[in-house]
Amino acid sequence: MNIDMIEAAAARLQGHARRTPLLSSPFLDEIAGRRVWIKPECLQHTGSFKFRGGWSAVSALEPEVRARGVIAFSSGNHAQGVALAARLHGVSAVIIMPSDAPRMKIDNTRALGAEVVLYDRNSQDRDAIGAELSQARGLTLIKPFDEPQVIAGQGTAGLEIAAQAAEVGVTRADVLVCCGGGGLTSGIALALEAKAPAMRVRPVEPEGFDDVARSLASGGIERNNRTSGSLCDAILTPAPGVLTFPIMHRLCGPGIVVSEDEAQRAMVAAFERLKLVAEPGGAVALAAALYHGDAIDGDDVIATISGGNVDAHVFADALGRFGGKA
Amino acid sequence: MNIDMIEAAAARLQGHARRTPLLSSPFLDEIAGRRVWIKPECLQHTGSFKFRGGWSAVSALEPEVRARGVIAFSSGNHAQGVALAARLHGVSAVIIMPSDAPRMKIDNTRALGAEVVLYDRNSQDRDAIGAELSQARGLTLIKPFDEPQVIAGQGTAGLEIAAQAAEVGVTRADVLVCCGGGGLTSGIALALEAKAPAMRVRPVEPEGFDDVARSLASGGIERNNRTSGSLCDAILTPAPGVLTFPIMHRLCGPGIVVSEDEAQRAMVAAFERLKLVAEPGGAVALAAALYHGDAIDGDDVIATISGGNVDAHVFADALGRFGGKA
Repeated sequence: MNIDMIEAAAARLQGHARRTPLLSSPFLDEIAGRRVWIKPECLQHTGSFKFRGGWSAVSALEPEVRARGVIAFSSGNHAQGVALAARLHGVSAVIIMPSDAPRMKIDNTRALGAEVVLYDRNSQDRDAIGAELSQARGLTLIKPFDEPQVIAGQGTAGLEIAAQAAEVGVTRADVLVCCGGGGLTSGIALALEAKAPAMRVRPVEPEGFDDVARSLASGGIERNNRTSGSLCDAILTPAPGVLTFPIMHRLCGPGIVVSEDEAQRAMVAAFERLKLVAEPGGAVALAAALYHGDAIDGDDVIATISGGNVDAHVFADALGRFGGKA
Repeated sequence: MNIDMIEAAAARLQGHARRTPLLSSPFLDEIAGRRVWIKPECLQHTGSFKFRGGWSAVSALEPEVRARGVIAFSSGNHAQGVALAARLHGVSAVIIMPSDAPRMKIDNTRALGAEVVLYDRNSQDRDAIGAELSQARGLTLIKPFDEPQVIAGQGTAGLEIAAQAAEVGVTRADVLVCCGGGGLTSGIALALEAKAPAMRVRPVEPEGFDDVARSLASGGIERNNRTSGSLCDAILTPAPGVLTFPIMHRLCGPGIVVSEDEAQRAMVAAFERLKLVAEPGGAVALAAALYHGDAIDGDDVIATISGGNVDAHVFADALGRFGGKA
């Protein structure tokens, strides 16, 4: 993995992925006690940064391999990213999703033309299901994070952050990234190492699923005890990846852990102050920026909103709990 | 009013107003039966396009006049736009607001540093209150729409629409604009007349407040019977303006009228498909694009989302009614 792969991915994404803006609000600055800059990947195609990695990986395949189709495992955002990338390349996609994934994510993945295979997280082996399908049809597996072209694609968000922050005069800041398996985090870290070396990436996770924070602290890969039971469905992975962890270990500052309540409050802050829809897992970095200022250094902080694919009732619950008081 | 004033306003807004993106979603295209392009002014500073006009007007004042401060009447979005523009110019702003304006709009206007004077719509004469304050303090009135520099500022959104649509190959389309007094509508119409003459602006209003549609049909200024009692608070004006109406009459196609239910459904569509927060009055143009396709010509339609300043409970109500079925 190196910056050249990220720049090559950026060239392949040109004209296909959105260059999301860098936003701010004086109200958020006031809450945080420093300037807060938001990279809203909820505005990316399919509603999350995952389209970047999906496009990067699908576009990097040899045409005759790609033509046989792709397969992915995902609770939702990677599913949609790969599904749309495959459709736009004119190839088929099979997505294996847990049956308890958010309704919107399952529906969207189907609507984007993918064949969705649901499995029961508790009783079925998704890897076995996937292996059988791949073999039978010659599908190429697109892993959600531990895959170089996926990391390179997510890293294109880091190239944009470096350029957009420089435009507003910011070259030194903690860059808070919503972190599951570490694809986005490691990709952004690699991009910033090359393009904005005075910035420091900080992975942000929800309480109870802080495998990356613990891994960074211990220096070895630590696992979560569970991978469900949080609103932050998008970022509940068992452990950092074999590819992503060494990158994060080399380049990232300490992880930050936020509560589910803080994630919901941050969703409401994004609603009220940015007019953006963030999903719970996509709001943890903003939560850290707003409510964990003590853990952050500097006059500026940059926070990703990694996705916005949230069911209406979950969003309404957050509004009911924290509307007017985020 | 002419294109030179709009281009001059754009030069003054450069580096201060956001150039909002032009967004799309395959899901919206499917609902509408044509390609739908969204100009999301909810992402503008202060959460609505009104910052454009506010900045344009405040920046156009002679420095010694501006230094005495400005005053505006507004139920909320113009209030915030003028308040922030004044603050960024280092001058004071007095905003006269109805006491039943949405809580968030009143709070935000205060938080942006303006002095807010509330009045009772039913028993008090806001013009008398404003005249007294202006005279006593030498404040300059910034009207919400019937003011050339305000129209010029709103027109900068039209310059961007012309350029961004051309980038995606669209030069011919109905351009649907959420319409109150007609500042945004007439400004965009003037900009497109010069920059994208094959486009046609269509004002969109909520049922019961269709003064512009009726005025365009009759050829003379028609009034609404009431100016409250709709969720679409942002666009409830008594009648089109003396300056805006002739521009709209010369340049716009017929108005389109949508129901409140359609506006709420469009809010939910923006939530689900664009990850954007639209307020009810800011969603009427998208509602027309999605649910009034018969009234629209062509393979492409462009719809503004004019603002996103909506109280949490109003948004949650829309999600509860139409979530999962927009």
